[in-house]
Formats: sequence, C-alpha cells, structure tokens
Amino acid sequence: MTEPAGTPPPTVFFVSDGTGVTAETLGHSVMAQFEKLKYRQQRMPFVDTVHKAQEALQRIDEARVRDGRRPIVFSTLVNAEINRELRKAHALILDLFESFVEPLETELGMKSTHTIGRFHNATESESYKHRIEAINFSLAHDDGQSTTSLQSADVILVGVSRSGKTPTSLYLAMQFGIKAANYPLIPEDFERDRIPATLAPFKAKCFGLTIDPDRLARIRNERRPNSKYASIDNCRYEVREGETMMKKEGIAWLSSTHKSIEEIATTILRDIRPDRLIY
Amino acid sequence: MTEPAGTPPPTVFFVSDGTGVTAETLGHSVMAQFEKLKYRQQRMPFVDTVHKAQEALQRIDEARVRDGRRPIVFSTLVNAEINRELRKAHALILDLFESFVEPLETELGMKSTHTIGRFHNATESESYKHRIEAINFSLAHDDGQSTTSLQSADVILVGVSRSGKTPTSLYLAMQFGIKAANYPLIPEDFERDRIPATLAPFKAKCFGLTIDPDRLARIRNERRPNSKYASIDNCRYEVREGETMMKKEGIAWLSSTHKSIEEIATTILRDIRPDRLIY
Repeated sequence: MTEPAGTPPPTVFFVSDGTGVTAETLGHSVMAQFEKLKYRQQRMPFVDTVHKAQEALQRIDEARVRDGRRPIVFSTLVNAEINRELRKAHALILDLFESFVEPLETELGMKSTHTIGRFHNATESESYKHRIEAINFSLAHDDGQSTTSLQSADVILVGVSRSGKTPTSLYLAMQFGIKAANYPLIPEDFERDRIPATLAPFKAKCFGLTIDPDRLARIRNERRPNSKYASIDNCRYEVREGETMMKKEGIAWLSSTHKSIEEIATTILRDIRPDRLIY
Repeated sequence: MTEPAGTPPPTVFFVSDGTGVTAETLGHSVMAQFEKLKYRQQRMPFVDTVHKAQEALQRIDEARVRDGRRPIVFSTLVNAEINRELRKAHALILDLFESFVEPLETELGMKSTHTIGRFHNATESESYKHRIEAINFSLAHDDGQSTTSLQSADVILVGVSRSGKTPTSLYLAMQFGIKAANYPLIPEDFERDRIPATLAPFKAKCFGLTIDPDRLARIRNERRPNSKYASIDNCRYEVREGETMMKKEGIAWLSSTHKSIEEIATTILRDIRPDRLIY
C-alpha cells in the first residue's frame, strides 16, 4: 500500500528544547518504517519558552496550509507549560518524552539527562570517548592498512574486496563503540590456501562476510568497469574460495547480499557479545 | 539524582519479530537519556510465534529474579496474539509499535514496512544506496586525501588537525547520506594566509570546526606525547590562525569542544539543508 499519486509529502517537525538530536534520531528511526514515503522535514531546536512554542505553532500551521494535510511532530519538551502550548497544534504529535522517558524515570527512580539538562556534557562521558576511540581504531585498521595493535580489536571482519567490510566496521564503531578492524581476503591468500599470517593468532575474533557473486560483480563494475577484478567469473572464484577458506578455518560468516549494515552489525554483535554490560 | 549505591543494573530486553534493529536503535536512543545508568542488555530477535514469546517470557523472568528488579522491555511485535503473550511479563514494556508506528499508519493511510515484512529489502532502497555511496565518498575524501570530485561533495569540513572533522564527516555520511569531505588547515596554510587553492572554488560549501586549545592539546598529547605538534603554545597558535582564516574567508564555523558528533552534525545539516525533502 502506498500513498495515492499526487498526495503532497507531509512535513515532519522535530521540536525540542535542546539541540533536537534526540527528537531527530528517534523520529528518523520511526519514519524509516515508511520506506516509500517522501517527506519534508523541519527542525525546531531550542524551543524553550512559551513564546517560541507559539512561533513553532505558526510554522506548523503554515506547513499544514501549504501541504493540505496535518504535519507530523516529534517532540521532546520537558517543560509542561511549553508542552501544553505545542499541543494546540493541528498536527499528529508524537511525544517521545511522555511515551518513553517519563515511564522510565518512574521505573528507575532517576531523572533523565534531558530533564536535568545534562545533554551538553555528552563529550565528557566514558561511552562517548570510547566511541570516538573505536572510530579512530576502525579507520586506522580499515582494509588491512595496519596490523599493529590487532590484539586490541574487538572483532576483525574478513572477506573478499567489496563484500561490505568497511561500512560495517565503521557502523560497529560509531554506533556501539566496537573496535572493528577489517582485512581483505585476496587471490594470493587463496593460492597459499591459508588466511594471512598476521590474522592467524586472532582467528577467534575474526568474523567473515560473503556476498552473492552476481551482486559483487555489479558493485565492482561500478568501480572498475569491464575489469578482470569485476568479471563474474572472477567474482564467482573469489567468493567460492573465500567461503571455503572461512569454513576450513572455522570462521563464522554471513552473507551481506540482502542485509543492511545495521542488520549485519546486529548479527555480529549478537555473536561476539551476546550479553553485554553497557556503560 | 543517581541510583542508590549497590542497586543491581537492570536488564534491558529488545524483543522483535524481525532482526531487532529497530527495537534496539530506538531503545538505545531512549536509554542514552540515562547517562549514569549501567544496564545489561539482551536481544531477542525473531520472536515470531507464541511459543517463542513464551521462551522470551521465561528469560525475562530469569533476569528479574537474578537482578532483583523488573527488567525493561523494548518491543516491536506486529502480531497481536504474540504481543498479548509478551505482555504477561513482569516488566516495564515499552511498545514502540503501539506508541508510534500505529498512530502513523493511521495518519498516513499506509502500512509500515515492518508491518508488511519488507525490512529485508533495505539494501535495495535508494536511500540506502545513497548512504553507502556517501560513506565511500567521505572515506576517500578524509583528511584531504583526495581532491578529485570535490565538486560532488555536499559539504567540506575544514579545521586544524584533531578538531573533530573525521568522525563528523563519517557520521554525516552514515546517518544522513551526506557526502562530507574533510580537509585539514595546516601551518603552511597560515603562513600563506590563504585556504588551500584546491578548496577556493568550493568555499561556499566549506564548514569550519574549531576547538578549545587546551582540549586540543590534551587530545594531541594522547597521540604524540610531548611533541611540538601537541604543545599548548602550538595548539593556541593553530586555533587562533584557523579561526582568523575562517573569519577572513567567510566560512561558517562552530566549536566542537563541548559538542558530540551528533550535535555538530545536526548543526551543520541545519545550515546546509535547512529544509530538505527526504526520500
């Protein structure tokens, strides 16, 4: 089911008394559930007075008139009076705070950082520093660039060129603070019939990616059209040899063909950290 | 207000009838609001039968007994019968589907991709391909590595070494599909008193990052302890010259000192795309 042709795209507002990062992150995840939907978006950060809420109301109403349909509003407003003002909008209001943060505050017996306005100290938190460190690590260890300090990697992704290792490594680092190195399997490795010697001591934390040869050929052809590298015969050869090697070495692997980096990362995490304690 | 000392960390479950990526992404954003809270997490993907829901109930109950407190459950279950089963859990259940996706389905008159089980085609969507392309672009144009195709960049981040350009570029690419190049400002640029010649034609899409010299010195010292590069005098010099140059060239800039990459990215987006149409 898709929207009738000619329906104008709705406007989605992210209204917040802070930067709006939370409203937007959550809102995007929810909107992503409507894959076919085009929408216009407007951020309204720093809505921290009743007067600014009234200005927000006006912009929401202008969008309603222009679009000929009610806007959708994701909001994270702590102050009750400002929130009451916003609720006068002719819009579908999805209040993240009311739905999730408030029940959690009650359950945990603690105030959220949003409530107490601590959001700006994000850069000082241990988990943030950890994420930045992981991003730097993953970048330095992209595509087998560096083999020093592989012992501090949380996971080493292996697979043939263009099987999805790089974006997955960066996503693991950025989203979960995982130090993810990645290392290509190349024809020389298949001829030697062994994984690269530098990886051998770390086999237990290797995780393989494979990919359908047809799709691999399409991806490689965008990079190097009509090359041997991109030819379907070569792709079939590399993928087959890569899978054989991973089986032989006892490296767990999955196919990236129909999986987004989010899905690949989640699967890898489940395998390497089934039950983590998060800080 | 923090948790009383000695309170065990709660267990947070992400229960889904699919991969659990949505439940987890949303759940993490919400839990991040409780900065001081340690918690244990367990994913339960593919809960797509009543029997599996009963197994989930059992694991939730085991956690409750072990922790001595109710677990927190983020769930995205479409099927009403399975959902009813899960709701028997002695836990705080935060149902993402019920809170947000259902009201949006009604509002938009369309079913979500989750409801119609389309999630696995994520890799075929235009916006996904766009994001992967942006990640590759940002990587290839990290730290001034490549100056070819700068004309296709959506934004070029400039700033002194270690001011936060690289993680911000990658975040912009990964989260928003923005092609973000980044280019360092180095002492040679300050001596010439001009931005690098390769950037001059693209000044309109440059965005500057600056940073507090004390913080910069701390960050650089972790990389190259006691070097001239990391010395506070040199950091003060580079930051001052960098800011002077950006002012002179009319490049908008912000300080990354107390801002997370999410906050920096959101601010940049607001400036370069105040009112985007999203696909």
